[in-house]
Amino acid sequence: MRIYPICPACLLNRAYMESRFVTDDEELIFKAVGVALKVLAEKYFTRSINAHIATEMHRKVYEVLGVEDPYKEVKEKANKVAMENLPIVKAFVENQPDTFRASAIASIIANTFDYGVMGHEVEDEDFLTFFIREFKKGLKIDDLDEIRELCKGKVCYLTDNCGEIVIDTLFMKEIKKICERLTVVVRGKPIISDATLEDALAVGVDKIADEILTNGEGAIGIIEEELPPETLERLESADVIIAKGMANYESLSDSRFKPIAFLLKAKCKPVAMDLGVEVGDMIAMLRR
Amino acid sequence: MRIYPICPACLLNRAYMESRFVTDDEELIFKAVGVALKVLAEKYFTRSINAHIATEMHRKVYEVLGVEDPYKEVKEKANKVAMENLPIVKAFVENQPDTFRASAIASIIANTFDYGVMGHEVEDEDFLTFFIREFKKGLKIDDLDEIRELCKGKVCYLTDNCGEIVIDTLFMKEIKKICERLTVVVRGKPIISDATLEDALAVGVDKIADEILTNGEGAIGIIEEELPPETLERLESADVIIAKGMANYESLSDSRFKPIAFLLKAKCKPVAMDLGVEVGDMIAMLRR
Repeated sequence: MRIYPICPACLLNRAYMESRFVTDDEELIFKAVGVALKVLAEKYFTRSINAHIATEMHRKVYEVLGVEDPYKEVKEKANKVAMENLPIVKAFVENQPDTFRASAIASIIANTFDYGVMGHEVEDEDFLTFFIREFKKGLKIDDLDEIRELCKGKVCYLTDNCGEIVIDTLFMKEIKKICERLTVVVRGKPIISDATLEDALAVGVDKIADEILTNGEGAIGIIEEELPPETLERLESADVIIAKGMANYESLSDSRFKPIAFLLKAKCKPVAMDLGVEVGDMIAMLRR
Repeated sequence: MRIYPICPACLLNRAYMESRFVTDDEELIFKAVGVALKVLAEKYFTRSINAHIATEMHRKVYEVLGVEDPYKEVKEKANKVAMENLPIVKAFVENQPDTFRASAIASIIANTFDYGVMGHEVEDEDFLTFFIREFKKGLKIDDLDEIRELCKGKVCYLTDNCGEIVIDTLFMKEIKKICERLTVVVRGKPIISDATLEDALAVGVDKIADEILTNGEGAIGIIEEELPPETLERLESADVIIAKGMANYESLSDSRFKPIAFLLKAKCKPVAMDLGVEVGDMIAMLRR
């Protein structure tokens, strides 16, 4: 998915927000937003993939701020809230007639744990009410039956945010029951609120997956040139790639990799438009 | 007031919004936002006055869009809503013990009629409830007594938005009762939702003021180099300049003109911070 005209304002807002997370030094914040603006102005007319432009922008902002992980606290909070709610979600999922389907939907609902998308509010209070309402709403695009079939082979699971990865473990367990091999790919370095190896280990992904790999340099989504050879091989040889969240969609929607199952909640207009759904809709869409 | 790090995101959002007002041509919108991004990236590090950067940005966006006034309908709607509510506001003001003060506050409340500031919502339903609540809240900075004294001389009244200018007429009438001369200055060309000569005439400012002048090329606020000689003279010779709204504040807060009475509602964080008040606060602040 290429950059849309409303993306730069949202990205700049995020650059400001993450600067504010780590400092009250107004001069430093001024510079950090300035470098973000510069990257956006340079890259906008190249019409590159939004997530790639965002990756470059955030890296430059982090450099100016002189911090490795401005979202450290935000991510810890997201994981904590999700861990607290995991038992109820688990009980709910286990109570459903089709646990594969229920856990997949739960993992899509958990994609809501995204701090930073403009206009998108995270509800971490009264989680169960929120969860059940979303669950009942169901999926706008639902290819879960086909996705389940493909999960009988080699699965490459691309995670997205912290918090979300906690609920992902329920779906990973269901995949693990039927798959030939489960590879989980996390970000190779801290970037926005996305899950890294540290998060994956903290929430016990290592006890479920056959292996945990990274996307290399911690791009938001996938930048093929940055992938470690092993990760690239897993993407190429997978019977299905499970791509969680908007950034993985943005960076893979026009890629050569297939088949890919995009599991996400459309949290902003550009992604919703690109998918042909409404903001707030959840999808499990298979691209063969 | 110089540009703040959160300004570019807001301005870009506005560039997008005004493009969307006039066209569904995605390619044209892409270009319009691109030119906005270019102006912002070029000007940000000059740390110029925010309203001046915004002026340049909007002019370039209009040029790309090929329209003279993307806010035409928005402005007409704002004037219409304000005209419908004028009789109640008038009755309310006339019922107050001090009509100068009451009409001044009414004109500040009317500064809420601003479509386009990010995160700022215009309430045009149940106007009276909204109006009375705001009126009771009162002013955070209140120099109205001193301002009244200065209004006994030559007054130069800089208007702001459409809609707002309708309610301004009540305050203008009060000034007219005591002043030596009332000059009203509107934008010389359409720019965002600001009032032009056409709007001033439509709402009857010509029946109140001694004269209506313009700011020349329609800057958002005042760009001194663009002022017609007569307008410049009035600003220089005024016993008090009444500057309505955020853009007039942004462009005059560090200027050589004085004394200036800034009458506005702080609708965004940067202006509120600059004034040392909270977002939502109303002020009538005299700078001698």
